[in-house]
Amino acid sequence: MPSAEHITETVNRYIGLVAKGSAEDIAGLYADDATVEDPVGGEVHIGRQAIRGFYAAVEGAERDCELVTLRVAGNEAAFQFRLTVTAGEHRMLIEPIDVMVFGDDGKIAAMKAYWSADNVTQL
Amino acid sequence: MPSAEHITETVNRYIGLVAKGSAEDIAGLYADDATVEDPVGGEVHIGRQAIRGFYAAVEGAERDCELVTLRVAGNEAAFQFRLTVTAGEHRMLIEPIDVMVFGDDGKIAAMKAYWSADNVTQL
Repeated sequence: MPSAEHITETVNRYIGLVAKGSAEDIAGLYADDATVEDPVGGEVHIGRQAIRGFYAAVEGAERDCELVTLRVAGNEAAFQFRLTVTAGEHRMLIEPIDVMVFGDDGKIAAMKAYWSADNVTQL
Repeated sequence: MPSAEHITETVNRYIGLVAKGSAEDIAGLYADDATVEDPVGGEVHIGRQAIRGFYAAVEGAERDCELVTLRVAGNEAAFQFRLTVTAGEHRMLIEPIDVMVFGDDGKIAAMKAYWSADNVTQL
């Protein structure tokens, strides 16, 4: 089982990469057969290639990302964060709670993001 | 599928009952065959009777509970809250992030609580 320290480091690396990394970098944190459901209730992206495609959508935008709270329990993590995306003159703030399940290899096996239009603010 | 309004109301009722309700009241929010994993990585309580037994452990203590943030997505919710438990001269603050999945009947089908000793403060 991955340690709480490893899970904490990976979540912090994820936040850093969502702010400044490439889709390839972010997808590298996931297991080959990982799943991403973002937002919960939407399409489930299955496998690292689909996950890279999902993150590629925000790759071109100017982003900032800040971890607000993190809870680690067992081989999972739940964390709240603030993501600011700037595209041209449009800036928006999204404030999700994400849940990640980690595999024995330390990679993210599953991610689910809890947010809706209620958690998006036009800046 | 239960509405976002129903899920929001149920989470708020849950917080209120964790503060002031009986184990029976809290268990009544759950489906007959619901599961509770609190904390994540610990024992999974299966079925309403086991869930009532789980909440009975805190029934005798003086409690206060406050919702901090709530995210509703699809038929699920993730929320951060602050629970203060007073037993004799001992007071402690626990700050979990919980995730709940709701069934079509509007009852809680599954709950997972993300917290560890790091999120407990002796007051």
